[in-house]
Amino acid sequence: MTAAPLTISVLTVGDELLSGEVVDTNLPSIARALSELGLAVARHVTAADDIEDIARWVRELCRESDAVIVTGGLGPTNDDLTCEAVARAAGLELVHQPHLERDLRAFFEAMGRPMVEENLKQAFLPAGSMEIPPAGGTAAGFMLELDGALVAVLPGVPREMDEMMASHVVPELSKRHGGGEVTVTRRLMTFGAGESDVANLLSDLIGKGPVRYGFLAQSGPIVVKLTACAASQREALEIIGREQALATERLGALLYATDEETMEEVVGRLLRESGKTLAVAESLTAGMVCARIANVPGSSDYFLGGVVAYSSDSKREILDIPDELLADGAVNTAVAEAMAQSVRRLFGSDIAVSTTGVAGPGQGGESKPPGTACVALAHPGGVVSLERRLPGYRQMVRNIATMAALNAVRLYLS
Amino acid sequence: MTAAPLTISVLTVGDELLSGEVVDTNLPSIARALSELGLAVARHVTAADDIEDIARWVRELCRESDAVIVTGGLGPTNDDLTCEAVARAAGLELVHQPHLERDLRAFFEAMGRPMVEENLKQAFLPAGSMEIPPAGGTAAGFMLELDGALVAVLPGVPREMDEMMASHVVPELSKRHGGGEVTVTRRLMTFGAGESDVANLLSDLIGKGPVRYGFLAQSGPIVVKLTACAASQREALEIIGREQALATERLGALLYATDEETMEEVVGRLLRESGKTLAVAESLTAGMVCARIANVPGSSDYFLGGVVAYSSDSKREILDIPDELLADGAVNTAVAEAMAQSVRRLFGSDIAVSTTGVAGPGQGGESKPPGTACVALAHPGGVVSLERRLPGYRQMVRNIATMAALNAVRLYLS
Repeated sequence: MTAAPLTISVLTVGDELLSGEVVDTNLPSIARALSELGLAVARHVTAADDIEDIARWVRELCRESDAVIVTGGLGPTNDDLTCEAVARAAGLELVHQPHLERDLRAFFEAMGRPMVEENLKQAFLPAGSMEIPPAGGTAAGFMLELDGALVAVLPGVPREMDEMMASHVVPELSKRHGGGEVTVTRRLMTFGAGESDVANLLSDLIGKGPVRYGFLAQSGPIVVKLTACAASQREALEIIGREQALATERLGALLYATDEETMEEVVGRLLRESGKTLAVAESLTAGMVCARIANVPGSSDYFLGGVVAYSSDSKREILDIPDELLADGAVNTAVAEAMAQSVRRLFGSDIAVSTTGVAGPGQGGESKPPGTACVALAHPGGVVSLERRLPGYRQMVRNIATMAALNAVRLYLS
Repeated sequence: MTAAPLTISVLTVGDELLSGEVVDTNLPSIARALSELGLAVARHVTAADDIEDIARWVRELCRESDAVIVTGGLGPTNDDLTCEAVARAAGLELVHQPHLERDLRAFFEAMGRPMVEENLKQAFLPAGSMEIPPAGGTAAGFMLELDGALVAVLPGVPREMDEMMASHVVPELSKRHGGGEVTVTRRLMTFGAGESDVANLLSDLIGKGPVRYGFLAQSGPIVVKLTACAASQREALEIIGREQALATERLGALLYATDEETMEEVVGRLLRESGKTLAVAESLTAGMVCARIANVPGSSDYFLGGVVAYSSDSKREILDIPDELLADGAVNTAVAEAMAQSVRRLFGSDIAVSTTGVAGPGQGGESKPPGTACVALAHPGGVVSLERRLPGYRQMVRNIATMAALNAVRLYLS
């Protein structure tokens, strides 16, 4: 539509990626960061921890790219060779950086750990390169020019890489990027219906307008992704905003968040806004609901705590569930309701939520089949509950049940 | 060393991969499955949800490969186009499979959900292709021959893909794979020291023998990866077995598992072997220790439950932590010890473990800095504890503290 966008290549380094030992989360992070500039990854290569291999790919990708983003291989061990390889590709010496050594020594001192000699290699950078300061770890990144291309070299640790992308690489690419078509995406997070049900609710919108629809099943949530392209950011945002309003109306209470907000952030926000406190009683999910709520910084303002009553004895003795309720097993809505009411009294919270069920693969002595999940919510006016048969294997059942418990709190508060 | 190995290409399909919305875990899974046959991925392409694009890549990769493994785009929604695209690339019709439709209807009935018309597309396969039956989900995979290459088409859902790789694709490739050099890997899982410390302990082994060393920092654990190549499986296993014995001796108590065993599986095994039961009291980790222990099927045999005492009131009232202990804040080893002893009494368990600390980013009213973590273990003979300053951000601190609590149980039992 306007100028041709920059051609960007990504080189991820590490035997552990080629062998499948580690999942490459950096390519998607980079793609996401670039999409905000209207840029995309043109090609992606994964190289082994081999100095000649890395150097060769850096040179080759530079020839056909405006920018090459390299991640991984900046650690302290003998298989971390990226810094040396990029210096070799560019014909540059490695130069000692006294301030990096000083920071390295301070880092180890703060951790109360001795620094071994090997770590010192992280205090060297290619001559004339622009340093990207360490972002939480011990590895510095850097940028340099090679064959007319920008080479940005970042650690493989996802969080450090993300931070350096945002602080240095994206701003630099934004400067070089003359313009072009802008892509805007929005993700509508739903919970409580299957992928085809959600698609069905939106069927009269799909393919009708300028916005592209995508669907993605996570463990429980179904993500509806809207994508709009336009000549300007403003235009793309207008298009997607109109479509979002239409889709939101169709999705109703299934929609729990847009874009990056997680279910626990939504629940935390609603608890904070309503000034209410929460306690949790868990059997099936065994701590997962508590852990998710406490993912959110500051959650101690509204989350009091919980009881993981995994054994029948603990349900009886700590949560005071009467014997007659447990006579038919621990997996039914009556037990879930009693657990929620009991933990609400125990912690003195405004609201309490509970889970019980059969995670599988076996039935664990229960009469219900694996995948059975009960969730209850106790509040000042009473208690409500639901029982569902969830698809999938042990972790999936526990994940979906965790989401269902959080979703019950969301629905009650909103 | 012997016959040339098969050339294998991987095509992953999905806008969500190119845009960075989803992490590609299928490439590593495939690489791992192939490595057991001594095979590797030669090239990897990610294609958009575009029928022409997918068909073009299938044809192109077939020309330069002995096998092409395609994943993703077999779902029920309008952006799932892989089945149709592969049929188009091969010039084949899609044929209705009555038994797949019957199974689809039964699947939805068991879930108590209505089946929408869109789902029926999952009951079609290219004419003459070999069906791979659905593996837990609704999508069937299939294999066919194109231009002398095997094309295996699998769903993008990782668990379904893994199962079909193992049940159909690996056996088929194994038949076609004439032999070649065999690569054997072994992963030694350590906890309690940093990457460079671990490397330092092994420094006299690294680069000295026929085994290659790699190091990988996870959130807490450091993985030492040994790789050996040889003409035969037996020879490679012998080489790696000797090296593992040497490395195991150097690593001592830092080593908690080899290969796939997780910390919670190790702890579960030790609890089961010793006939002991466990209870947990959590503040900092807020349910994560409980959830990890309950990851293991059958954990209800030794895991009784726990208390998440997130607020100070709940520490006082539910765990009976005396006011004078809490006067200096909740983050110290004395509070951790009292929490472990109290939850051990409450649940009547043999052993109890506890966590308290400051996850950050702020100090949450505590005097200790973010990253401070205390872990205590109560047992019939008394109580032990430790305090550490952990690196990283909120989730990393909580992850490492969770591992430290599990590791305390492991060290006590072994």
